[in-house]
Amino acid sequence: MLSRHLRTHLVLAPSTSVGKSIFSTGLVRASLALGEKVGYLKPVGTGSGDGDDSCAHLQRFAPGARTACLFHFDEPVSPHLAVERAARGGGPVTMSVPTDDEFASAVGRHARDFALETAGQRSSLYIESAGGVHSPTLSGTSQLDAFRPLLPPTILVASAELGGISTTISAYESLLLRGYDVDAVLVFREAYYANHEYFERWFNERGIRVGVVDHPPQQVPSAEEDAANLEAYYAQIADTPLQRVVQRLQQIHIDRMSNLATAPRRTLDSVWWPFVQHGLVKNESDVMVIDSAHGDHFSVFSTSSPPPLLSPIFDGSASWWTQCLGHANPELTLAAAHAAGRFGHVMFPTATNLPALTLVEKLLASVGQGWASRVFYSDDGSTGMEVALKMALRAFADREQLLPAEGRKLAVLGLKGSYHGDTIGAMDACEGGVYSERVEWYEGRGHWLAAPEVRIEQGEVVVRGGADGGEVARYQSLTQLYDVDGRVQHDPLAQTYREQIERELEARIAKGDGIRFGALVLEPVVMGAGGMIFVDPLYQHVLVDLVRSNRTLFPATSRAGAPSTSPIDSTPVWQGLPVIFDEVFVGLHRLGRVTASTFLGSTTRPDIACYAKILTGGLVPMAVTLASDAIFQAFWGDKKVDALLHGHSYTAHAVGCGIANKTLDILTRMDRRGEWNDAKFDWIQHASNPGRQSLGPPPASPSPTELAWSFWSADFVRDVSAHPAVEGVMALGCVLAIHLRAADGSGYQSTASEAILRQLRFGTPHDDAIASSGASFQIHARPLGNVVYFMSSLNSKPATLRAVEASIKAALDVKAQ
Amino acid sequence: MLSRHLRTHLVLAPSTSVGKSIFSTGLVRASLALGEKVGYLKPVGTGSGDGDDSCAHLQRFAPGARTACLFHFDEPVSPHLAVERAARGGGPVTMSVPTDDEFASAVGRHARDFALETAGQRSSLYIESAGGVHSPTLSGTSQLDAFRPLLPPTILVASAELGGISTTISAYESLLLRGYDVDAVLVFREAYYANHEYFERWFNERGIRVGVVDHPPQQVPSAEEDAANLEAYYAQIADTPLQRVVQRLQQIHIDRMSNLATAPRRTLDSVWWPFVQHGLVKNESDVMVIDSAHGDHFSVFSTSSPPPLLSPIFDGSASWWTQCLGHANPELTLAAAHAAGRFGHVMFPTATNLPALTLVEKLLASVGQGWASRVFYSDDGSTGMEVALKMALRAFADREQLLPAEGRKLAVLGLKGSYHGDTIGAMDACEGGVYSERVEWYEGRGHWLAAPEVRIEQGEVVVRGGADGGEVARYQSLTQLYDVDGRVQHDPLAQTYREQIERELEARIAKGDGIRFGALVLEPVVMGAGGMIFVDPLYQHVLVDLVRSNRTLFPATSRAGAPSTSPIDSTPVWQGLPVIFDEVFVGLHRLGRVTASTFLGSTTRPDIACYAKILTGGLVPMAVTLASDAIFQAFWGDKKVDALLHGHSYTAHAVGCGIANKTLDILTRMDRRGEWNDAKFDWIQHASNPGRQSLGPPPASPSPTELAWSFWSADFVRDVSAHPAVEGVMALGCVLAIHLRAADGSGYQSTASEAILRQLRFGTPHDDAIASSGASFQIHARPLGNVVYFMSSLNSKPATLRAVEASIKAALDVKAQ
Repeated sequence: MLSRHLRTHLVLAPSTSVGKSIFSTGLVRASLALGEKVGYLKPVGTGSGDGDDSCAHLQRFAPGARTACLFHFDEPVSPHLAVERAARGGGPVTMSVPTDDEFASAVGRHARDFALETAGQRSSLYIESAGGVHSPTLSGTSQLDAFRPLLPPTILVASAELGGISTTISAYESLLLRGYDVDAVLVFREAYYANHEYFERWFNERGIRVGVVDHPPQQVPSAEEDAANLEAYYAQIADTPLQRVVQRLQQIHIDRMSNLATAPRRTLDSVWWPFVQHGLVKNESDVMVIDSAHGDHFSVFSTSSPPPLLSPIFDGSASWWTQCLGHANPELTLAAAHAAGRFGHVMFPTATNLPALTLVEKLLASVGQGWASRVFYSDDGSTGMEVALKMALRAFADREQLLPAEGRKLAVLGLKGSYHGDTIGAMDACEGGVYSERVEWYEGRGHWLAAPEVRIEQGEVVVRGGADGGEVARYQSLTQLYDVDGRVQHDPLAQTYREQIERELEARIAKGDGIRFGALVLEPVVMGAGGMIFVDPLYQHVLVDLVRSNRTLFPATSRAGAPSTSPIDSTPVWQGLPVIFDEVFVGLHRLGRVTASTFLGSTTRPDIACYAKILTGGLVPMAVTLASDAIFQAFWGDKKVDALLHGHSYTAHAVGCGIANKTLDILTRMDRRGEWNDAKFDWIQHASNPGRQSLGPPPASPSPTELAWSFWSADFVRDVSAHPAVEGVMALGCVLAIHLRAADGSGYQSTASEAILRQLRFGTPHDDAIASSGASFQIHARPLGNVVYFMSSLNSKPATLRAVEASIKAALDVKAQ
Repeated sequence: MLSRHLRTHLVLAPSTSVGKSIFSTGLVRASLALGEKVGYLKPVGTGSGDGDDSCAHLQRFAPGARTACLFHFDEPVSPHLAVERAARGGGPVTMSVPTDDEFASAVGRHARDFALETAGQRSSLYIESAGGVHSPTLSGTSQLDAFRPLLPPTILVASAELGGISTTISAYESLLLRGYDVDAVLVFREAYYANHEYFERWFNERGIRVGVVDHPPQQVPSAEEDAANLEAYYAQIADTPLQRVVQRLQQIHIDRMSNLATAPRRTLDSVWWPFVQHGLVKNESDVMVIDSAHGDHFSVFSTSSPPPLLSPIFDGSASWWTQCLGHANPELTLAAAHAAGRFGHVMFPTATNLPALTLVEKLLASVGQGWASRVFYSDDGSTGMEVALKMALRAFADREQLLPAEGRKLAVLGLKGSYHGDTIGAMDACEGGVYSERVEWYEGRGHWLAAPEVRIEQGEVVVRGGADGGEVARYQSLTQLYDVDGRVQHDPLAQTYREQIERELEARIAKGDGIRFGALVLEPVVMGAGGMIFVDPLYQHVLVDLVRSNRTLFPATSRAGAPSTSPIDSTPVWQGLPVIFDEVFVGLHRLGRVTASTFLGSTTRPDIACYAKILTGGLVPMAVTLASDAIFQAFWGDKKVDALLHGHSYTAHAVGCGIANKTLDILTRMDRRGEWNDAKFDWIQHASNPGRQSLGPPPASPSPTELAWSFWSADFVRDVSAHPAVEGVMALGCVLAIHLRAADGSGYQSTASEAILRQLRFGTPHDDAIASSGASFQIHARPLGNVVYFMSSLNSKPATLRAVEASIKAALDVKAQ
């Protein structure tokens, strides 16, 4: 809703009958007087004096404007009821009732058409909303939510009545809560209640100009006289008072455009981006200016594209894997605001508050169920993993009664390709590479195994591993692959893996450099930052089991007199090494299950686990580290020095906890209501033939296997897996990872994916495949070497994802050519 | 506003005339019918049918309730106007108009009195607000803000009129924005607009019960008949419909009490606190249950104290130094909500958005002015300092062309007592101690100098230093101490410090272990976590200067062909070592200046600086690391591997940026309006006699010295500095640090402060000194060994701080006895 020459404003009010139509008419007239081409749109009219009739009123008193009404109903009730009753009474509902998407599209199209029509001329379009800011629109959605995908700048008509101060300020707050800008406030002068005086002071303090005009004249019996009175009235208000307002709105429009247009240059001159080589991003056109976001889309400003200046771009990386319920989700906004308004942030050590405590209990009852007894808060995945490492190494050193100098040298056991964050401690738990080499204090402290990797190739699930990446096994469905309980019993790979790992660790220890492992650290199922590497879950299962049971490699030297079960709840203490699961990326439904650990077998649980990203619904950073009681006991005592002395000022901040509680509630509600069932059904057919015969006879009492499924469609995944430009593909939950055939070899530095990403982001929409997909948006995705990945939210619309799939296929075809 | 036996509810509506009084009467009657003792309070009545008259109405139709009206005005206008006009017209204003504090106190006192009166009986108190949720109260403050210190649970009366859906939902959002709980919604049944049907669906989805009753009967001419009709009406609605609502409210009250009462046990069983030895915090009474917070106070729930169950407790640590504009500041809440509602969080690398860009520009123009050219975002002080270290060490290694193995061994130069966070990298930059010893991967990488410390003793500013902590110098005022420009020229200590440092560093390097410094890391002025150690600013000035100018100790081996000025803006590149200022705690006005670096001299600026805590107004974590162009250039190139490869998923999250922009705007506004002038004037007299003669003659053209001042009163600080229980005290900006005489020696493990903290937190109010101070709250403070510190906000009310000071003096007297 932003054009260079056309200024668009949505006119709203706290309620009906406070003067929207009169002010709209006055604004239109003032704009005309200032030489603008002016449009007036009443998307929905209800009541005989509304809609088409307001257009007639407007044409009479502000002649020369282009007027339109998109949907009209005679009954003067809320639009959602007008629709209902018109349908019931066989009234004049000649169109089918538009969905919210269709409503926003119709309004957006109208604005675009008007922009084209007025091209090159200074113009304005006033859109008058129906009722109050939260009055239900045709579908029952509130006005503010219905217009939200368009996010036009707004003018708030304030109420001059008794009680109007309250309704107006609340309406203003509702506008801000949904990200709207309020450019002006208009109100009638009313000497007795004097609301306008209060508003002038109140809104001016907030930088918003208040336009005050007299009340319209009382209606008189003579229609002619009435019209003359009104004509005189409009002439008066559209003169100085409203022209000043319009000039101010023009200035705001120019400032807004200028602020956005200069943002790329200013950003290039002042920002230091993470993970970006600034020497390679020097052009203004390289900078994506995000004006707002909604659902799965950014609203991106660009002066280089043809109008409109704002285009929806699919957020293909889910903003670095944080988004799960759509950008600017109003339920999450309100949860954040409620926590902020109740607490701000409050002290946590030796204190408690219900948002923080409730979240702890929710987590222990879900992802921590059956193993965790404690939750520790920190600020992000990296700090959460530093906490996990401190917990594990201390517990190990405590059991082994190590000296400080021995503790310094403890190593972690992990997998090649793992990533746990960018603080030094988290980096040290990962194998070094070309990037960590450049961090002066980095020091890889561990040994990392090369785990076999899984991909769908030509429609079949293939496990590859070993030095040459050769094929190790093949499965007919993801559900079969992830039936780890079954595979442990019947898949010969279980024994192969165990022997491989034992051999490698024996050889490593035999090196004689005194390496001593203090923890096993894993990202279950997928190593995301490492390149969306899907690891064979059986391998991770075997590794965890081995660490806990191989008494030669991992002797359990119990501390003298230390119990083997927790003194608190009699659960067994950890065996061998403390096992850390880094679920920062994979946890909380990202892969279709609340915890990714269940993919490693129904009973495989860690001693310590870390969650972040989705936890806070894609709004603000926060992390939690869960631990078993046995780990917690290692820090228990009567000396402060034995405690876990780690903390952050904003520990357990109420805003994060409030958002997290709401996020988990929404996810639970979606799951309970079966909102993911369509996606699950889509994958059931692909899992219907488990083909277990190749692995031996089915077990006597087969373990109930859980479906492995994705929001990306099974047919699409199969097709892509057979595409000539593709080596393999994987999809699970929200994640779609496409490994491209790359001439330059794979790896983080690969540029194989660049052509495809450019096509998705800037590809011309005249491409047939994209156009026929119905995709009216382009796609922003982030590469990981030769892997192109796409991340859905947990509430992405199926139509959106189908359109993304069509665009991907078209882009792959371009590459294959 | 919470008692065991007394349930209190505030009745609100979106506007006037939607039925608050009728529903209040009905609720009172229903409560009476259910056997409760019932109170009804109309704090402010305006109009003849309101206030005292609503009490009469209520007594007539719900006989048996205790009714009261606190302030009454005849004119049926908004209370703020009623006050104004009554005053102007010589009307019935017999009391002086209460301030917001007095208003809240009067309501709170009424509720407490009623709780005492009904002790032991199941009771309820309905408080009917005036007008709508945001209608101005007597002082002009909105209802929601005026009742906010009490935060009673609420009942929202919804509007049944056309437009009522919008005003009601907006009112509901305004309630949530200020942290209120909405326990029930009440509305009239209205067949035509059918708002009640919409509300039932909408609020039930949000877990809120909607009570629907018929409209009251139309008024008829006969007063008698009218009364009979109303009587019949109330009998009907107060029967089943409203009794069900009351029963639901009772259940919510019980659940709320139970949720809070069980919170300590549940917290002890499930939470892992930061920096807490759980073995020492085992009793429920050790757990502070924070129900909400407002301004400088927590609202703390406790079943062990006498009623009321919620007491205000002064947040003496400013919630670990994060608070600066009061808890739950509505401006910050709205800023958070607006950013969340506009963006959620959006991708930052190679992208931009106005909240993030605006913040970058604000920072470069304030704390970065004159030296910084880039801002890097991360999540908290610890990650911000890891980023700073990565920047500095890389820049150094780049200039010196070090091999990776040499880079690994780079050391930092710092001060003993410094603290930069709890992630391993930040820890490694600090000297080891009893605590870091227990972190397996900790490895102190540096050398740390013992800086001389400053305290006010017996009213004089004393610098102590050296191994024995002996007196080094003495100054007559803080302003004199912090006149570093002047001291550099005339204070012989400057040369002494330079020689000391050079000697120590020469000796350290002579050890021959190949130590090589890669960065100087300082917390300017105060080392907070290290024990509120105020360092002599001259020492830090000299250290920075020496690192940049001593070519023997810090040879500037320029990279072959590397320019000595930045190719971009011709500013000089860093000399000797990159200098990092950790302003996480001290920056952004905490010490009374926007950057603490100006205390080290008017031209002393770092090459890299880190800000957090106050940055985000005490709401959510976020940090920024600023860097000079020369540092940035070390990462510039055409290879990704040379970039700063550090990032966090929520980098530059819009919510944090939105809050930070608003926080900086508010602080600028306060400064411009002179809101800190009273505190500054208080300190001017103490600085009026610089007494520089002891240090030599005054300079020919003296440098203009800036005042050093504090929110804590100068007289109080002088008095405390002479108290027998006190070794010394320091105050600057928000910080007050009292060093207690301790038998057990000072240090982080000291328990000297425990008695005083206990007295402040649990001291009986019958103590004379506390009672006479007018302090109606207790104080929660956090110890740092034998240092007790207190942190004000930047907008603390002077009366609050004077009360805190009185309590501190009383507690010191108790200790001294």
